[in-house]
Amino acid sequence: MQFNQVLENVTTYEAGKPIELVVREFGVNPKDVIKLASNENPYGTSPKVVEKIKGLVQNMFIYPDDSMFELKEALANKFDLTSKHVIIGSGSDQILEYCVHAKCEKGSKILMAKTTFAMYEIYGKQTGATIIKTQDDQHNLEQFSKLYKEHGADVIFLCLPNNPLGECLDKDDVYAFLETIDKETLVVVDGAYQEYAAFKDEKKRIVPKDLIANFPNAIYLGTFSKAYALGGMRVGYGIAQPEIINAFYKLRAPFNITTLTLAAAIEALKDEEFVNACIAKNFEEMTRYEDYVTSRGFEYIPSYTNFITIKFGDKFVSKTVAQKLLERGVIVRDLTGYGQNAIRITIGRNEQNTKVFEQLDEVLEKLK
Amino acid sequence: MQFNQVLENVTTYEAGKPIELVVREFGVNPKDVIKLASNENPYGTSPKVVEKIKGLVQNMFIYPDDSMFELKEALANKFDLTSKHVIIGSGSDQILEYCVHAKCEKGSKILMAKTTFAMYEIYGKQTGATIIKTQDDQHNLEQFSKLYKEHGADVIFLCLPNNPLGECLDKDDVYAFLETIDKETLVVVDGAYQEYAAFKDEKKRIVPKDLIANFPNAIYLGTFSKAYALGGMRVGYGIAQPEIINAFYKLRAPFNITTLTLAAAIEALKDEEFVNACIAKNFEEMTRYEDYVTSRGFEYIPSYTNFITIKFGDKFVSKTVAQKLLERGVIVRDLTGYGQNAIRITIGRNEQNTKVFEQLDEVLEKLK
Repeated sequence: MQFNQVLENVTTYEAGKPIELVVREFGVNPKDVIKLASNENPYGTSPKVVEKIKGLVQNMFIYPDDSMFELKEALANKFDLTSKHVIIGSGSDQILEYCVHAKCEKGSKILMAKTTFAMYEIYGKQTGATIIKTQDDQHNLEQFSKLYKEHGADVIFLCLPNNPLGECLDKDDVYAFLETIDKETLVVVDGAYQEYAAFKDEKKRIVPKDLIANFPNAIYLGTFSKAYALGGMRVGYGIAQPEIINAFYKLRAPFNITTLTLAAAIEALKDEEFVNACIAKNFEEMTRYEDYVTSRGFEYIPSYTNFITIKFGDKFVSKTVAQKLLERGVIVRDLTGYGQNAIRITIGRNEQNTKVFEQLDEVLEKLK
Repeated sequence: MQFNQVLENVTTYEAGKPIELVVREFGVNPKDVIKLASNENPYGTSPKVVEKIKGLVQNMFIYPDDSMFELKEALANKFDLTSKHVIIGSGSDQILEYCVHAKCEKGSKILMAKTTFAMYEIYGKQTGATIIKTQDDQHNLEQFSKLYKEHGADVIFLCLPNNPLGECLDKDDVYAFLETIDKETLVVVDGAYQEYAAFKDEKKRIVPKDLIANFPNAIYLGTFSKAYALGGMRVGYGIAQPEIINAFYKLRAPFNITTLTLAAAIEALKDEEFVNACIAKNFEEMTRYEDYVTSRGFEYIPSYTNFITIKFGDKFVSKTVAQKLLERGVIVRDLTGYGQNAIRITIGRNEQNTKVFEQLDEVLEKLK
């Protein structure tokens, strides 16, 4: 059977490996598996949210309120905007899909950093758009500007901070860049890890209200999957001018998040204290990774997220290191597919990280 | 900002009204609201599934196994196929989206019944495809054949049984029709309510394995939202030859169902006894609706589902009836938007249905 020709160029996303796979393939006891491959919040979901949802499990048969009235109001309050500025997605990932599918078709152009979130390119190729990438791995706005002047773009993706590398542009630099962009170009500010970046360095903070007031062609994406510890529940949001939100609604399927997800997101917004505590612990633990990597003679990319990218240079092959760790029940992300001889590790809890260092030492010792 | 031109023709789906809305707008006590507008299973989720999920709520922070290994295996076993024949979606709704987006672009043609599930047309218009509809409201295969010979089609939708009207074609008639269809045309057999139809009348039963063996251009869609009582959890599936499944995978975003949804669907498949009991009760209660409607001098469409469509002819205006019921906390679906002076009511539990009859009598008395 023939399918749309554009699909021929589409590759599928390779997700971080699940605990179930390690248990199945290597016989590791599920309790001993350390999963630090998908940047989940390692402290788990807020106990308040867990309690709330336990009391609602019997509602699994009922469709959610498709207007998402209460969640949109809560987000509007959080960002000092109205619910007309908000759209909810099955992860911010789904809003990425709307960004591309609302703006792009065959012949459209999408501009992004060389090494950034893989779904930008996958969604782009689904529409037949041309993908234009900067030369540097990390976000380099001079290169973005040069390519934009040369080719133009229907959509520009800025991942702030960037997944999978961890770097983050300063807000002032982003704004200066946005001043030069045509108002017909949709600029996507993917803030999946913004809570971490803003905590570490105020210069990185993007305020959605301010962003979209200054740049009506920009959209801010946030997620509950990372700092809010609801990765498994699939919920994120887009903040933009109503003109953009209304267009995206034409692509949104009804009931795009679950009944329990809706309730969990509403509840999670009430427990910002938990979120902040997790972020603080994240950066305490990150210094341990930085010290570890330096002491072993490798390099890392300074990270504004809840993960760290460790580069092995010409010393080890990252794919082998990741595989050996996997066999020992430690799941990390090999970045070979991103053109990097590096692994990306989510910053885990204190005891998890201690085990990672031990296991990594053993693996590297054997690979010498 | 300009968006893709095709979006200009897209309308958004109007979901059944949620309990929250009735509580907000009419001050009805949530416990007194009877929601029979979205064809959920009124008996609630299987207690075994509820118990299982209660014990997994703390996993909300972890992404699901994106390979969906266990669920795909369970479905493959159920249908005597392999996991290569299975794709999982956020409701079978998401598989509908894949069907259209994998096959259609501007200039494509989609053939469907005049009055059928609204999302077929919405997804179609997102791609710029032309929608071709039969003249009769209910599925009429002669009209399908005539239109197919005249225009051809990239995708054909058969809703078996049909939502929102409730009728169902016989399997033998469907097969005879499929014999005449070109193998390049994707035929979607939407079986969201198949468990109900097959229970009521064996002649309606579509067996996925048999369907796709005879017609490799057909896909069978099933859902956990109806008989399996997981509407709020958003999970459905497509069963087709691997060639089709592989193409659809290029459109599937990672983690398209939640961690709790994955576990709930696996557990629900283990409790078929519960499902069968719900379906049996559904048809017992449906006879009460049939008797009620007849005794009041209205007409209904014989239904192979868990809902019934009541036609008011020239006696009442369905929109008014639905609104008056809503104000009393009884949520049903007005079908004016589908060109019908009718309401669609989900067959509820015994005590709910008794209240519906009482409230409907009072509403109609006042509207006389």
